[in-house]
Amino acid sequence: MEGISAVVFDLYGTLYDVHSVALELEALYPGEGLEMSRLWRQKQLEYTWLRSLMGQYINFESATYDALRFCCAQMKLPLDTPTQERLCSSYLRLRTFSDTFDALRRLKNSGLPLGIVSNGSNYSIAQVVDNSDMRWAFNELISADDVAIFKPDSRVYALAEQRMDLPREQILFVSSNAWDATGATHFGFPVCWINRQGNAFDELGARPKYVASNLGMMTDMVLKGV
Amino acid sequence: MEGISAVVFDLYGTLYDVHSVALELEALYPGEGLEMSRLWRQKQLEYTWLRSLMGQYINFESATYDALRFCCAQMKLPLDTPTQERLCSSYLRLRTFSDTFDALRRLKNSGLPLGIVSNGSNYSIAQVVDNSDMRWAFNELISADDVAIFKPDSRVYALAEQRMDLPREQILFVSSNAWDATGATHFGFPVCWINRQGNAFDELGARPKYVASNLGMMTDMVLKGV
Repeated sequence: MEGISAVVFDLYGTLYDVHSVALELEALYPGEGLEMSRLWRQKQLEYTWLRSLMGQYINFESATYDALRFCCAQMKLPLDTPTQERLCSSYLRLRTFSDTFDALRRLKNSGLPLGIVSNGSNYSIAQVVDNSDMRWAFNELISADDVAIFKPDSRVYALAEQRMDLPREQILFVSSNAWDATGATHFGFPVCWINRQGNAFDELGARPKYVASNLGMMTDMVLKGV
Repeated sequence: MEGISAVVFDLYGTLYDVHSVALELEALYPGEGLEMSRLWRQKQLEYTWLRSLMGQYINFESATYDALRFCCAQMKLPLDTPTQERLCSSYLRLRTFSDTFDALRRLKNSGLPLGIVSNGSNYSIAQVVDNSDMRWAFNELISADDVAIFKPDSRVYALAEQRMDLPREQILFVSSNAWDATGATHFGFPVCWINRQGNAFDELGARPKYVASNLGMMTDMVLKGV
């Protein structure tokens, strides 16, 4: 890639696997883990978008907690306080994907500044990064909470540009979430969409400049030129 | 109900059944109709919210068309131009629910002004209403297109208040979509959520003032007092 001076990553679903929560769910609700995990994630996203649109921002942990309560009510499953705390805290101990560590190490060694820009709160981002021993990789951990609205609102992408202290054209934005890759493209970042599962790209009026099937391929593209 | 001087309705899913499109889909894609209908509707909603948040508004027909293209790409199904036109136009010929006609007739006979406030364009709303011979019921057909952003942004609810020419506290807002019922409640309408399928209500920081399991029960509540 030409002209890239820094790389920023989405966190949930891009560097860290949100479906690792499914294991915890399956232990608590045998036979329901996968469906619950899918519904919880779907509602978590919807709630961030809807609250942003309604002008009713709450932080990501609260939206995650609300989404869990909805899931249990909808699926007619019990949810006591210890279960709820255990599940919400599992969002602070997400696993990296198998390609995350090596990609970040190679990019870091090349001297590029790296960052995370996430809808998670500062607390959540720091917890996830620290619990996986990945703090060494990042120059900046950037939270939507600082502008009190969620991606794909442009104020979150603008915050990333400001904190990385570079013009947007020089910051590669990496996300596996097609809606996020689209928002970042509309904002003006060069974007690499990580398409691990061979999904179709969302039809939201913009296409990312780059597509890779994993973080290793993205890193190759950054370091060797496309 | 006390102090209600007008009633406004959401269109898609509240007065008209969006899953009636599934029959058309099933004819074109045997065995896939129900799943496609579900995914198409999900993406149609997501695209309206995401485009609103990204400041990339397009009208509802265009978002519907984009959602259909995504569905076919994701499900690896073909989509030629005649099929696409046939499916998108099926959104203009939606069926009312079985309780719609009678509820509107009773409310109309009581002398209450009635309106629709929908994310659909003026063209779509008019087509759906005319194709089902329901124009007699409504004093106002109100489209989000006039403010170029979708519900649950408060500007759409404000437009309804303005067009019905009454203070928001006197306008009953009726929707079967929990996110819409929440947005309208945050705005300040008294809201009746129509919960036909015994769903859990979304956890978005507000509860509707009234809940009914169909439009007939809602009408009883309006006309007889709760």
